[in-house]
Amino acid sequence: MTSFSDRLATSILDRRSAVCLGIDPDVGRLPDDLRASYAARAGELGAAGAVAACFAEFASGLIDAVADLVAVVKPQAAFFEQYGAPGWDALRRVVACAHEHDLPAILDVKRGDIGSTSAAYAAACFGGAADLAGASLPGLDADAVTVNPYLGGDALEPFLERCGEGKGIFVLARTSNPGGVDLQERDCGGRPLYLRVTDLIARLGAAHVGAHGYSDVGAVAGATVPTSLAAVRAALPHAFLLIPGFGAQGGGPEALAGLASGDALGYVVNASRSINYAWRERGGDYRSAAAAAAAEMRDAIGGF
Amino acid sequence: MTSFSDRLATSILDRRSAVCLGIDPDVGRLPDDLRASYAARAGELGAAGAVAACFAEFASGLIDAVADLVAVVKPQAAFFEQYGAPGWDALRRVVACAHEHDLPAILDVKRGDIGSTSAAYAAACFGGAADLAGASLPGLDADAVTVNPYLGGDALEPFLERCGEGKGIFVLARTSNPGGVDLQERDCGGRPLYLRVTDLIARLGAAHVGAHGYSDVGAVAGATVPTSLAAVRAALPHAFLLIPGFGAQGGGPEALAGLASGDALGYVVNASRSINYAWRERGGDYRSAAAAAAAEMRDAIGGF
Repeated sequence: MTSFSDRLATSILDRRSAVCLGIDPDVGRLPDDLRASYAARAGELGAAGAVAACFAEFASGLIDAVADLVAVVKPQAAFFEQYGAPGWDALRRVVACAHEHDLPAILDVKRGDIGSTSAAYAAACFGGAADLAGASLPGLDADAVTVNPYLGGDALEPFLERCGEGKGIFVLARTSNPGGVDLQERDCGGRPLYLRVTDLIARLGAAHVGAHGYSDVGAVAGATVPTSLAAVRAALPHAFLLIPGFGAQGGGPEALAGLASGDALGYVVNASRSINYAWRERGGDYRSAAAAAAAEMRDAIGGF
Repeated sequence: MTSFSDRLATSILDRRSAVCLGIDPDVGRLPDDLRASYAARAGELGAAGAVAACFAEFASGLIDAVADLVAVVKPQAAFFEQYGAPGWDALRRVVACAHEHDLPAILDVKRGDIGSTSAAYAAACFGGAADLAGASLPGLDADAVTVNPYLGGDALEPFLERCGEGKGIFVLARTSNPGGVDLQERDCGGRPLYLRVTDLIARLGAAHVGAHGYSDVGAVAGATVPTSLAAVRAALPHAFLLIPGFGAQGGGPEALAGLASGDALGYVVNASRSINYAWRERGGDYRSAAAAAAAEMRDAIGGF
């Protein structure tokens, strides 16, 4: 089994792109024709089921359209969970669609809990829960997940154990939202809290470095706070960075200056709304608008 | 709509119990007869569906047995999410079963994300997602959820907005696991991080205080760290505390000394494994063993 970090590095190098396609489906912003066709099937699929099926088709259309332009796909679990059991099934289909295009899928779940519970979350995302006959169930089959460090190192261990099976994690360090300052920038003995988190990431990730020199334990750091983003890179030269906050949230290409590390840049830059809903600005089919937006973003990020 | 904090206070006072029944179903530890009856239905229900249905029956049996002995029920989402869509349906059934007994349900999900994503998580847990006709869907119908503060105040706002609809949140302050020290006990300008979190909780909760004097914004603090637990109480005299780590994790009744606040104690003490699997120590039917364990715990906690 190739390590997650090597699969991600290969995908970046093959596509010459550091774009991460975030998938954040919002029922109110989907194309009218898609909405209408699934609204007509609400009797058959149920109200939640119709939305979930609509999300799965929308996401598949996006992934098909940008598969050569992005390095990785990141579905946001919350938007699917809103629709209950059918939403969960749709999320599984989105991961499967990414895999059909040989794209790794980072499941954005931001989980974190004490040991046995984190192990259950890891099984939900990566597979491995036992059935009544003792067989192992597939779960959502994600390649990597986002995790929250607040509960400390032991809460992350059950996710880390899955690195040996080709899985990866991205630990929240400095998030892109305004409230990220509330705790993450607090001074903790001369350094901000988020750099205490990078200490933890460095420690946890050291044993999981792949052939390309990157660890399977990466970090989330936002493009909206370039100084902190640069500090995260300095603290973690061997980590893949997952960078949200580019585009719609205000971060620009200048935030990426000097961040490249290793042979495959060592970061991916997420865009969700600006690609998902590109058709609303650009007109035309949502898929071609997404492809145009993804290509522009790939070129704006550069690196190759 | 009665506020969450008033419903919880009423439940504590009516039952004269501060026990929170955690529901952490583990397929390997369920009673043999239950396992066998659902294993026989795996062809009909599917492998994951059989486990999920087994979990729902197990949890319903527990809730039926202890409904007069506990104040609140806390299903742990991770254990259900492992089983995908049917697991999610089972989780919804567990919440519904608690409501049949007029018990509030705290969904232990430890979510937290940036604004629109937190709003989607709130819709998943509390209901409110829109379908294709613009109608609102029910979600899991939880009364309260656990949330992670690492992303800051703005990430919690979408959950807070639901307090006006009778919902509540419990923010992680000092967790019960050994790794809780890694970040939560870090010195942040003369006070540990978890007391910076209680500052945030106090600020967010001030506008949501019910008739019993408690806020709908509570805090999670573990019985395994009595000094920190006491500090959380001192910082938050009007918050309900959700206290894990009692019993199996090592916290005892002495950790609760001096914690009572207001007319309904102001805390609930969680027990999961020691009640869920009481039959493995005590023998007999799992339901009667759970009832005996819950009654013992209620008496050990005291307060009435």
